[in-house]
Amino acid sequence: MSDRDHKARFRPKSRDGGRRPAWQREREPSDGPAILYGWHTVTAALANPRRKIRKLFLTENAARRLAEEKIETRVPPELVRPSLIDQRLGPDAVHQGLLAEADPLPSPDIDTLPQEGIVLVLDQITDPHNVGAIMRSAAAFGVKAIVTTARHSPEATGVLAKSASGALELVPFVTVQNLARTLTELNDNGFMTVGLDSEGGENLAAVDLQAPLALVLGAEGKGLRQLTRETCRVVARLDMPGEIKSLNVSNAAVLALYIGATRLGLMT
Amino acid sequence: MSDRDHKARFRPKSRDGGRRPAWQREREPSDGPAILYGWHTVTAALANPRRKIRKLFLTENAARRLAEEKIETRVPPELVRPSLIDQRLGPDAVHQGLLAEADPLPSPDIDTLPQEGIVLVLDQITDPHNVGAIMRSAAAFGVKAIVTTARHSPEATGVLAKSASGALELVPFVTVQNLARTLTELNDNGFMTVGLDSEGGENLAAVDLQAPLALVLGAEGKGLRQLTRETCRVVARLDMPGEIKSLNVSNAAVLALYIGATRLGLMT
Repeated sequence: MSDRDHKARFRPKSRDGGRRPAWQREREPSDGPAILYGWHTVTAALANPRRKIRKLFLTENAARRLAEEKIETRVPPELVRPSLIDQRLGPDAVHQGLLAEADPLPSPDIDTLPQEGIVLVLDQITDPHNVGAIMRSAAAFGVKAIVTTARHSPEATGVLAKSASGALELVPFVTVQNLARTLTELNDNGFMTVGLDSEGGENLAAVDLQAPLALVLGAEGKGLRQLTRETCRVVARLDMPGEIKSLNVSNAAVLALYIGATRLGLMT
Repeated sequence: MSDRDHKARFRPKSRDGGRRPAWQREREPSDGPAILYGWHTVTAALANPRRKIRKLFLTENAARRLAEEKIETRVPPELVRPSLIDQRLGPDAVHQGLLAEADPLPSPDIDTLPQEGIVLVLDQITDPHNVGAIMRSAAAFGVKAIVTTARHSPEATGVLAKSASGALELVPFVTVQNLARTLTELNDNGFMTVGLDSEGGENLAAVDLQAPLALVLGAEGKGLRQLTRETCRVVARLDMPGEIKSLNVSNAAVLALYIGATRLGLMT
């Protein structure tokens, strides 16, 4: 397989006249490896015994840095020139000389989630940068799992993994077929399901949040789907004093996490 | 000028072997127009009397939607096919049928900032998605201005303007040559300058924050430059309970804004 083919696989070219970004179009579930690049992303994968590394490509500089920091590569690395990784990832990827092909991590079942703390539920948030940033914030706030839909969500690879900056190895990523059914299961399992919506009836900071807590976020523009909203116990908004009333979705997520973690007494 | 040339102007192709994204490389200050696209971004510009619109390109659908919502276009729009805007912006831009060429807004002088509320200071944050998301959060929290360095910062156009989702029209964007000198001026003008750094000596939520407040954020990875850090009155960290201790920079910014605005009594 040529480098071109590799690149095409995880940065698919537009086939519908280029009206929507590739990651916003219908995704074919891939059985290919997870592509991990960048220092934090790859070293976190190397530190995760549950992550099976298939291949590791390193520049000389990256190999030296790993050796200096006494990080085991687990598989014999292939030393390559930076331009080879560039070709594979495209010019905008800041890979820092590390690229791994790995098995995707298993997606745990919703019933196995601990009935404590916070889980985040993402309703068709498609931008892998945003989902990656959300995963990173989730790891920073000790979130127990991220739940996403199998369709209309980015895969845990490439840009998402890079933006998550190692969080992919720390926060279980649960993919489900039917989000409303999953929210019902969470309700039945004692979770307080709280949807975030700028039209929500209550201010999140004023809600008596209880653990286990499921915070549910929708895509920018579209927001929560109707059935998602109806299945949440509470629909709350984030009150802010300025003229703009909605945030970038990863910004809304981290604020909801901070408010939730503070309310649940998790910040100490 | 062909569409190709237009596109090249605000999405420059790599000229250094593609090692770093175009927006991370040295920028030539452009005297070209600000490129604004997307519904929120363009309609906010149309609603801003201080924004001089030069040209407005609309698809038929977008023109109809503007008419339905009784939004004045201020200049006679050119009706175009969606593919023309696609060609100009590249396939990943979600333009919703609107593209404007406008004059950049004037950059106010640091001495003219009101001595109240919060200003955000960005120390060489280069990613236009992040700076745009930060501007949007700044508008949501009623921030008085965003201060950035003239070099190593993205211009207020294109992807930044789109990510800001109209906030460019609401939050003054101050560009300065020397950030340390600017921070000294802010200190002299009575601002409490607080740098954010994961190694900071105090937890931001525990700092006795006072207005006027300047919150200072550095680039991911690099953080605050040494002179920036030394010029801040306080260097604080964001304490979080999870395993990852640093956030995406726009996520860190919105959290700092929430903590600052709450502490200053601006949230009611």
